[in-house]
Amino acid sequence: MISFLDQEHATQDTASVLPPRIAMLQVHVENLLRELHVDLGKQSVVSDTALPGRHAHIDPDFMHKVELACLAHPEVQRQVEKLKLPEESTVVVEPWTYGTDGMNDMLERLTTCWFYMRMSSDPDANYYAYPLDLCAEVSSDLEVKKVYHLPSGEGDRLEATGDLKEYDRRKLHEGSEYHPNLTGSPRTTTKPYHVSQPEGPSFEIQGSRISWEKWTMRVGFNYREGMTLHDIRYEGRSLFYRLSLAEMFVPYGDPRAPYPRKAAFDLGNDGAGVCANNLKLGCDCLGHINYFDGWLVTQSGLPLRTPNVICCHEIDDGILWKHTNTRTGNAVVTRSRVLVLQTIITASNYEYIFLFYFGQDASIHYEVRATGILSTAPINVGDTVPYGTIVAPGVLAPYHQHLFCLRIDPAVDGHANTLVVEESHALPIDDADVHNPFGVGYTTISTPVEHETGLDLDHATNRTFKILNEARVNPTTRTPVGFKLLPCYSQLLLAHPTSYHARRSEFGAHAVWVTRYHDNELYPSGKFTMQSTGGEGIASWIANRTEEEKGVRNEDIVVWHTFGSTHNPRAEDWPVMPCEKMVVGLKPVNFFERNPGLDVAVARAEGGRSVLVG
Amino acid sequence: MISFLDQEHATQDTASVLPPRIAMLQVHVENLLRELHVDLGKQSVVSDTALPGRHAHIDPDFMHKVELACLAHPEVQRQVEKLKLPEESTVVVEPWTYGTDGMNDMLERLTTCWFYMRMSSDPDANYYAYPLDLCAEVSSDLEVKKVYHLPSGEGDRLEATGDLKEYDRRKLHEGSEYHPNLTGSPRTTTKPYHVSQPEGPSFEIQGSRISWEKWTMRVGFNYREGMTLHDIRYEGRSLFYRLSLAEMFVPYGDPRAPYPRKAAFDLGNDGAGVCANNLKLGCDCLGHINYFDGWLVTQSGLPLRTPNVICCHEIDDGILWKHTNTRTGNAVVTRSRVLVLQTIITASNYEYIFLFYFGQDASIHYEVRATGILSTAPINVGDTVPYGTIVAPGVLAPYHQHLFCLRIDPAVDGHANTLVVEESHALPIDDADVHNPFGVGYTTISTPVEHETGLDLDHATNRTFKILNEARVNPTTRTPVGFKLLPCYSQLLLAHPTSYHARRSEFGAHAVWVTRYHDNELYPSGKFTMQSTGGEGIASWIANRTEEEKGVRNEDIVVWHTFGSTHNPRAEDWPVMPCEKMVVGLKPVNFFERNPGLDVAVARAEGGRSVLVG
Repeated sequence: MISFLDQEHATQDTASVLPPRIAMLQVHVENLLRELHVDLGKQSVVSDTALPGRHAHIDPDFMHKVELACLAHPEVQRQVEKLKLPEESTVVVEPWTYGTDGMNDMLERLTTCWFYMRMSSDPDANYYAYPLDLCAEVSSDLEVKKVYHLPSGEGDRLEATGDLKEYDRRKLHEGSEYHPNLTGSPRTTTKPYHVSQPEGPSFEIQGSRISWEKWTMRVGFNYREGMTLHDIRYEGRSLFYRLSLAEMFVPYGDPRAPYPRKAAFDLGNDGAGVCANNLKLGCDCLGHINYFDGWLVTQSGLPLRTPNVICCHEIDDGILWKHTNTRTGNAVVTRSRVLVLQTIITASNYEYIFLFYFGQDASIHYEVRATGILSTAPINVGDTVPYGTIVAPGVLAPYHQHLFCLRIDPAVDGHANTLVVEESHALPIDDADVHNPFGVGYTTISTPVEHETGLDLDHATNRTFKILNEARVNPTTRTPVGFKLLPCYSQLLLAHPTSYHARRSEFGAHAVWVTRYHDNELYPSGKFTMQSTGGEGIASWIANRTEEEKGVRNEDIVVWHTFGSTHNPRAEDWPVMPCEKMVVGLKPVNFFERNPGLDVAVARAEGGRSVLVG
Repeated sequence: MISFLDQEHATQDTASVLPPRIAMLQVHVENLLRELHVDLGKQSVVSDTALPGRHAHIDPDFMHKVELACLAHPEVQRQVEKLKLPEESTVVVEPWTYGTDGMNDMLERLTTCWFYMRMSSDPDANYYAYPLDLCAEVSSDLEVKKVYHLPSGEGDRLEATGDLKEYDRRKLHEGSEYHPNLTGSPRTTTKPYHVSQPEGPSFEIQGSRISWEKWTMRVGFNYREGMTLHDIRYEGRSLFYRLSLAEMFVPYGDPRAPYPRKAAFDLGNDGAGVCANNLKLGCDCLGHINYFDGWLVTQSGLPLRTPNVICCHEIDDGILWKHTNTRTGNAVVTRSRVLVLQTIITASNYEYIFLFYFGQDASIHYEVRATGILSTAPINVGDTVPYGTIVAPGVLAPYHQHLFCLRIDPAVDGHANTLVVEESHALPIDDADVHNPFGVGYTTISTPVEHETGLDLDHATNRTFKILNEARVNPTTRTPVGFKLLPCYSQLLLAHPTSYHARRSEFGAHAVWVTRYHDNELYPSGKFTMQSTGGEGIASWIANRTEEEKGVRNEDIVVWHTFGSTHNPRAEDWPVMPCEKMVVGLKPVNFFERNPGLDVAVARAEGGRSVLVG
């Protein structure tokens, strides 16, 4: 691929360096997962590997079959009858992939079914407002293996069998709907706000290639990662080979079985591409919008176009830079135009909005917005537990974490890069060799990372992670050119290191990882996360390599950033959660000789057609 | 004031509870600073206090006089002659308030004058591109006390006297201009972007009162703090009595004299109000803009209207909340409209943009954007030092910190509030009394702060600072109502605790402080920062109170957040710096019974007049 890109940028004539097109297929043949590689040019199978004990991701079609199988099962029906639910209610089954907990694991692929009740004939009524005590496990061949009830009082410690008690009607309540058909009249105070771009957008799109201001890149899309970005350059200079959300882990903090099985790998198990929304003009994005479609496959392997899975548009982000010369009174202001690439996924109850922002100052920001509906569990009226918030009568919103891993494959002026950790430290005040008579001096200490490892954040030392090209020196600063990571300060995985959560996720143990590039290392919790048992993620890759293989100085490296939120729900997150934002940045650091946005045209009073009020 | 506000919200009839209008005046009478309080209703002087050894803030008029005095001084002229500067150049003097360093302090108010050269007849040419080796100190009565030259080689350790060497013409260079008259043609790729609000803005303004969506507040402005916000309520419920930037400290990290004197208290010494920009429609803000004017005084005490110091407008901030019911395929999306209050100050070389953002979900965000021009120092061609970046030939951009203090005076459903520190901790895995068989459980541990203190951030435990009203319980969650601080993770003051920087700033030692409310405690480095010697800031207030006086549980408390950046300049920050953003948040936490933005109208495809591209 590198020789193709080099050739493309040099001459446009890439015929001689076209890489073969190899499709990767995961197929179930008689309940056994196989992975095939097929050369589409030669129309030949390159490899065919049986993967006993492995499970592929699941999709909505399968989930729907599981729901139906579950609802049709006699024991499920018997238990639902015991609940004596209100007549107008409907039982809803929400299948989840099964989180390994080490006590109940089987080789067979299982789905955990959580039960809810819808208290309206409107199919958009919020059934998460009525979690039921019931739970079931369904196998890949749609057999209901187990039916049990959930711990839902403060004394309960485990799932249990036996008959359910009658549903407690004190849990019936108002105020948990979010769909406009079911809520009151909306507020009318928000006046219209229009964006117009009379000369069209500033970007140009050719197929998957985007050029905007001085940026060029390609946008990709696949079933697992959703949106990916490739060959990102500014003024033709290479910055990043690939940027992608590599994994996402959502473990729940309720210790009572079966809740430890609520531990979702939304990329590895479900697929960000599979779950991507069809975005709507004016709703999901404003202004002049270009949509990209994606391609998935149906259950039978036919190509499936998924429309509008990525949108590309511009926003105004306030001031880019400003200075007023106080001697002349002359102010110079430029406004910041930003290119936005957005994709949104729905993972059952939750939605995640993933946004890349490109700035005229050559900065990149990656933002995750978490919204949607909390995953809820039943709790007895009057009870409390120390690992969840009661958001409505009988509705527990358990504590949980969202841990994301952004995979940053740099190519800062070339592929041989080094991760350098820089800290700012006060100079010693009492050292005879150091001049610091007033005790105010400070300096930076830079440490190149020599071997693959996981590292942590430290705001107290202003610890900064720089991706440098040590062979390319900025002629002005006389230091290597680079980009720095602006991390999102987040708590790491809370689950105990010996737990299956920790062993399965691995990337959640450190905030920043650096590895040497390997073709098959795209997913930091391993390629097969479905009912995985651990030992296949980023920490294991590193542990299994020799010291020499671990060398990452002036190598083709990959930097991984773990971030997210410890989400202890608020009442304000119910019944639908206002976006919670998490932001990661990548900024040039002595990569350019000066501010790359210096030539942005100065803002003029008439520029934005603004109106003076009052 | 509280009885006035209570009465105003209850009946609108406030005649009986109008507080007296007392003006505070700081005046110099024969070089002695006096502070007077004048009752404007009674037209009487309430108090008149002489303040020997204290200095008031300075203003541009005085600074300009210092410049002229400095340039007219024979020794300055003699040294400038020794430099043999290029014929077309002009010498520019930049006066700074004098940062106490403990070795050169006098009771007299001093101004440090830094010298630069402008290499163009255009008065907007960037003179920071040509720092000269010269420095001078000027007294309040405009006497030049000392002329010396700066350490500017890697071996130099101190300021020195003697004759300057000829200016090194290898330092003359291109590429350090930012004014459009002096740079090449701007990029033309950025197409116009207009915002229109055909029905006008969603806010209403009456005098200093703003109402927008469900928010109400008053906006204030004064010479020292610039923009302040008061009596902030949502749906009529009180949230914050006052929000203000309380201080800002910018110490430089170059240990060599006289650089430790570069330590700016931009509020205490200069005044954010005094330095506020006159904002321009379409340049500093887009859309329908309401401007607020401010009032200052001239040097002779006359009222001075400063136009457009605060702008009020709305922005679209993407998605507020979204959920797609995967069973029906129906997506519900609301867009986030945000109210922006912005003020911008120019502090010599730098600009600071201060923004409050109000959300429909009852969140508040406070953003600081640092832009403008780096303060530079001379360095010999070919030399380097470990506490600065060379951004152009002969131009050192020294390392420095920007430390801001946001003063949060809460009134969460009333004035008796408590600061609670909440952390998320894994449950023990091996404790017989705790049920955590899978090692995945976690819980929160909450600790109310009982006494005034400084606290630090800890992302590793998800340490969260909640301002609670312990007497008001959320009926759903059954926990106290509150707001939480979303801190900006920043390195604290690097200067040694025994240094004058640390002793003078005090607030820079901790990220979060809580104190009990006192009328005169608005400024966490003390009221008089000009050439202060320390011991008058927030740490000293606390240290000087008894245990009982320090009680902050269920009291009228004030929470202070220190944040900022350790700014080790990049080449990309030159010649004018793209905005560096720092963001602090305040969000309701179990204050409301549900998402306060639930009733925002659903976005419609035609809503934003968006256009499909391609």
